[in-house]
Amino acid sequence: MTIKNVTEIDDLIKIISKLPGLGPKSAKRIVLKLINNREELIKPLANTLAQVYKNIIRCKICGNLKSINSNCICLNKNHDQICVVENIADMWVIESTGIYKGHYHILGGTLPSYENKNGKNGLLIDSLINRVKKKSVKEVILATSATVEGQTTAHYIQDSLKETKVKISKLAQGLPVGGEIEFLDDGTLFSAFKNRAPVIID
Amino acid sequence: MTIKNVTEIDDLIKIISKLPGLGPKSAKRIVLKLINNREELIKPLANTLAQVYKNIIRCKICGNLKSINSNCICLNKNHDQICVVENIADMWVIESTGIYKGHYHILGGTLPSYENKNGKNGLLIDSLINRVKKKSVKEVILATSATVEGQTTAHYIQDSLKETKVKISKLAQGLPVGGEIEFLDDGTLFSAFKNRAPVIID
Repeated sequence: MTIKNVTEIDDLIKIISKLPGLGPKSAKRIVLKLINNREELIKPLANTLAQVYKNIIRCKICGNLKSINSNCICLNKNHDQICVVENIADMWVIESTGIYKGHYHILGGTLPSYENKNGKNGLLIDSLINRVKKKSVKEVILATSATVEGQTTAHYIQDSLKETKVKISKLAQGLPVGGEIEFLDDGTLFSAFKNRAPVIID
Repeated sequence: MTIKNVTEIDDLIKIISKLPGLGPKSAKRIVLKLINNREELIKPLANTLAQVYKNIIRCKICGNLKSINSNCICLNKNHDQICVVENIADMWVIESTGIYKGHYHILGGTLPSYENKNGKNGLLIDSLINRVKKKSVKEVILATSATVEGQTTAHYIQDSLKETKVKISKLAQGLPVGGEIEFLDDGTLFSAFKNRAPVIID
């Protein structure tokens, strides 16, 4: 489809249809909504995107997003706990539960499942060790995924942190809430048996 | 959910979740994708939006989108046919079929079903009549929706164009392709009977 004469609109549809979950049809619907709301949508969206592009970077120490003009919160104070996650999406999910209020450390991915530990793919592992050493960290919570890559990465971090003597914990593995035994995979059942907890009778 | 320290990201999520078909979750997914593709996505998207905001307006004559720096195609030449549609989305759908290659006239909505014809809500009806008079238009195709409002608008345009003596046609009404009689509404069946066509036997 070509909208004669107006290449900007075509360009906009093309870029928007590259975003996750969107295709050409939903992109067109979004562009129509944008065009019909110039002041309420196009202007603030263009401005905010330009600001994010100019001002927001990943902190080289903790991997979180930070404003280019201010120090990252990871510099501010001593932390009791650091929760280590693979990426920003994981942090947002944990934050949205409200279950954890401490600091985060965002690796930026996982180690490959084969043991290429020298490369490390730019993961922020060395800076995690530095953070643990410099700040009076009492506990490192490894919240990497229960995948082969996530667990390999967790093991590697565990090894690397040994010398710091910090307390290290991992998220529990077992039955997911609502999980029916009948439909669980062997690995999950194995973890659930291995990590079984005693029942306390009042 | 607050992403401490980085209000720009919160703002971006808020704006994007206002777009049609998107909610807070999909907006977050989109923002993550944007952040991870600064050069390939954020920059071109911000620039294109700014250009659309600055350069693209609705033509006051035909209602189509046009660049602020160039004349609208509706000024260029005489037209054989003008297809009258309610909005840009309708034009895009017709264009995507490739069934019609002529010019369009985008009303910008419909008349309200009650007969408030003096107000006209800023619909480009007068400019349609001027276009038909000025250019050597041979046919006006009314492609408004088969809703009460769409048909009211079509009737009103039909009346307004009477004096110009231009040929006026309307999209056919009847069974939609794939439509099963059992599940069709009374109105569609009524139209299909009324507009029944003779079968030609070879």
